[in-house]
Amino acid sequence: MGGQAMPVCETLLLRREGAVLHVQLNRPEVRNAMSLQMVDELRQTLQAAESDGQLRVIVLRGSGGHFCAGGDIRDMAAARMKLADAAPGQDPVAEVNARFGELCVAYAGTPLAVVTVLEGTVMGGGFGLACVADVALADPGASFRLPETSLGVVPAQIAPFLVERLGYSQARRLAVTGGRLDATAALGMGLVHGVHAADAMPGALQAVLTDILACAPGAIAATKALMARARFTPPADLVQDAAAVFSRAALGPEGQEGTGAFLQKRKPSWAVS
Amino acid sequence: MGGQAMPVCETLLLRREGAVLHVQLNRPEVRNAMSLQMVDELRQTLQAAESDGQLRVIVLRGSGGHFCAGGDIRDMAAARMKLADAAPGQDPVAEVNARFGELCVAYAGTPLAVVTVLEGTVMGGGFGLACVADVALADPGASFRLPETSLGVVPAQIAPFLVERLGYSQARRLAVTGGRLDATAALGMGLVHGVHAADAMPGALQAVLTDILACAPGAIAATKALMARARFTPPADLVQDAAAVFSRAALGPEGQEGTGAFLQKRKPSWAVS
Amino acid sequence: MGGQAMPVCETLLLRREGAVLHVQLNRPEVRNAMSLQMVDELRQTLQAAESDGQLRVIVLRGSGGHFCAGGDIRDMAAARMKLADAAPGQDPVAEVNARFGELCVAYAGTPLAVVTVLEGTVMGGGFGLACVADVALADPGASFRLPETSLGVVPAQIAPFLVERLGYSQARRLAVTGGRLDATAALGMGLVHGVHAADAMPGALQAVLTDILACAPGAIAATKALMARARFTPPADLVQDAAAVFSRAALGPEGQEGTGAFLQKRKPSWAVS
Repeated sequence: MGGQAMPVCETLLLRREGAVLHVQLNRPEVRNAMSLQMVDELRQTLQAAESDGQLRVIVLRGSGGHFCAGGDIRDMAAARMKLADAAPGQDPVAEVNARFGELCVAYAGTPLAVVTVLEGTVMGGGFGLACVADVALADPGASFRLPETSLGVVPAQIAPFLVERLGYSQARRLAVTGGRLDATAALGMGLVHGVHAADAMPGALQAVLTDILACAPGAIAATKALMARARFTPPADLVQDAAAVFSRAALGPEGQEGTGAFLQKRKPSWAVS
Repeated sequence: MGGQAMPVCETLLLRREGAVLHVQLNRPEVRNAMSLQMVDELRQTLQAAESDGQLRVIVLRGSGGHFCAGGDIRDMAAARMKLADAAPGQDPVAEVNARFGELCVAYAGTPLAVVTVLEGTVMGGGFGLACVADVALADPGASFRLPETSLGVVPAQIAPFLVERLGYSQARRLAVTGGRLDATAALGMGLVHGVHAADAMPGALQAVLTDILACAPGAIAATKALMARARFTPPADLVQDAAAVFSRAALGPEGQEGTGAFLQKRKPSWAVS
Repeated sequence: MGGQAMPVCETLLLRREGAVLHVQLNRPEVRNAMSLQMVDELRQTLQAAESDGQLRVIVLRGSGGHFCAGGDIRDMAAARMKLADAAPGQDPVAEVNARFGELCVAYAGTPLAVVTVLEGTVMGGGFGLACVADVALADPGASFRLPETSLGVVPAQIAPFLVERLGYSQARRLAVTGGRLDATAALGMGLVHGVHAADAMPGALQAVLTDILACAPGAIAATKALMARARFTPPADLVQDAAAVFSRAALGPEGQEGTGAFLQKRKPSWAVS
């Protein structure tokens, strides 16, 4: 089973469970602050998962009672140090920041399903990761924060995903007021989709995974891709392409297995549980 | 009164009531599944209503306790059968799917007001129709479902309207998790705008119709058209066009009647009730 | 302190309080209906505030227990009178309307933070102003209304900001049904962000101002500008520009002051209270 091997990671704990890859941010001593190494390991893990062939869902969570405290300030300090020696046109600070942005883009655009389990600190870049997940579940004590503007910097790579998740107007309000939210407020504005106490979280997560795994992975991927286009394209312009997507799915192996299973009153092959 | 005659329909029941056309999907034996014939009759009915001159609102509902169970699988099966004989470049499956997409586009873009009354099964294409209506009212027992991905296919024509109705992020979550909702959840995410028990539904519908009929039909049409552009256009780019739209309305017959009625403290001519 | 002097206003009361400019619409005898003079004074006030150098927040509110009843019909009547003498291609009605649209665009796009306090009548153009503010607080008795379509005209300049604030689908529903809302409904759809009784409003406003003033003004401006682009641009296309924005902020005076204050465990210079 499985194509590409998972990368060896120092900052992440990886655990396969059937079609689900559990990814745990594992720097509890700094509330799982995202070092550049973690950023790179998260991207390599996603690439390996996408080309694995068996994996269909990534579950992202933290360790030590927190999700993620944002970017690691040591990497940014190191980038500043390199500025003096940087060649003209080079900007080490922007480069470090862009690598985090590319991580967010990769997770937001993956054909796999992404679920996050959020507890404790969900801050800065961690807030951004929460926004790119397809489904986000939160502990009642989770605490969301965008500290950037109060530190004189900008939640720059996060801003597009705040707009994507919350809509422009709520995103702007959060940015202007420093973005401090508890789990209930996060639920109310659609930042998270469920709030569950620690003892109920495993069951809630399992229910989400069962729902996802009942759906054909290629169909999920095609739907996600269509919706990403629909965000920026008037519906009338998508009719023909959508029809081609539908036909490809219906006539492909998933559509045939789905129809067969329906007629034979059995579960389709992908509905593992 | 009235321009074009209503089409003779086998799958729909049509009933005029002043400026309101009540359209009832009428295949209760299959929970009003949308056959190709129904798709075509819905489009012809809309065209006739748009050119009627007297009609201003379409109310869509089902019969037999359900709204609509989605596309009729028999039409799709017939399209598959035609594949063997299809000319190169022809795709009968995509063509059937695109006809449903064009139906959604037509109802989403009509200058008339569209109201849906949702009860029982609201599934697949029926879910899509619910999303294109300007106002959606639901029975507490209405049950919403996107079964496509669990059958190995894609809610392809529906996807743009899920994004339009729910925002990208909620739409994506529904697609990834198989999209099962009750009426309360549908209300919470703006999929429907009111939930009313059977005995309260006639009054709730009448209140919506009274609100709509108090507004000038040309003004409603112009506002809907502007908003459709505003979805994809920065506000600054619309100022001049919006001003032209305003001027045309203010100086036209509706603006003059509205001003006159306001000054004379009477209802304007369009405010039938 | 301060650069440009505030304009002398007949229709507005202006009051500086540190970095906050309180702007009170002051035509209580007509529920603060927006005359052309008021439109011009609001724009001049914004320009002066933007170039002031000290001001960071504008608080907009009404007087006499109402926020704003919309455009002043006398200006529109005067514009109609000019039509007969207008040169070919000139449209005085459209010109008056566009001036209000440009006002909305200016407040929606300002780098300053904008807060509104809404009570009593919030109608037509007043509804539009409420939509452009970053943060909107409402009295429980505030009453929101879009009367345009019932008067035979179009909420033309307001339409884009309804879409921006509420999302396309809710905006369209309001437009079709005549847009009547109380404060609770406005809170539920994100039109306002808090509802506070009169005796609690000063404290609620102060809490919002404290949150805003804890954030660096340049960082707020840069974030607002990025988010306005993100509304119409796929996230992947913004990564490089966002990185440049981040780097500029981090290496600029605000980023340096923010880092220094953080390390020295003191408040940064901009965190007045």
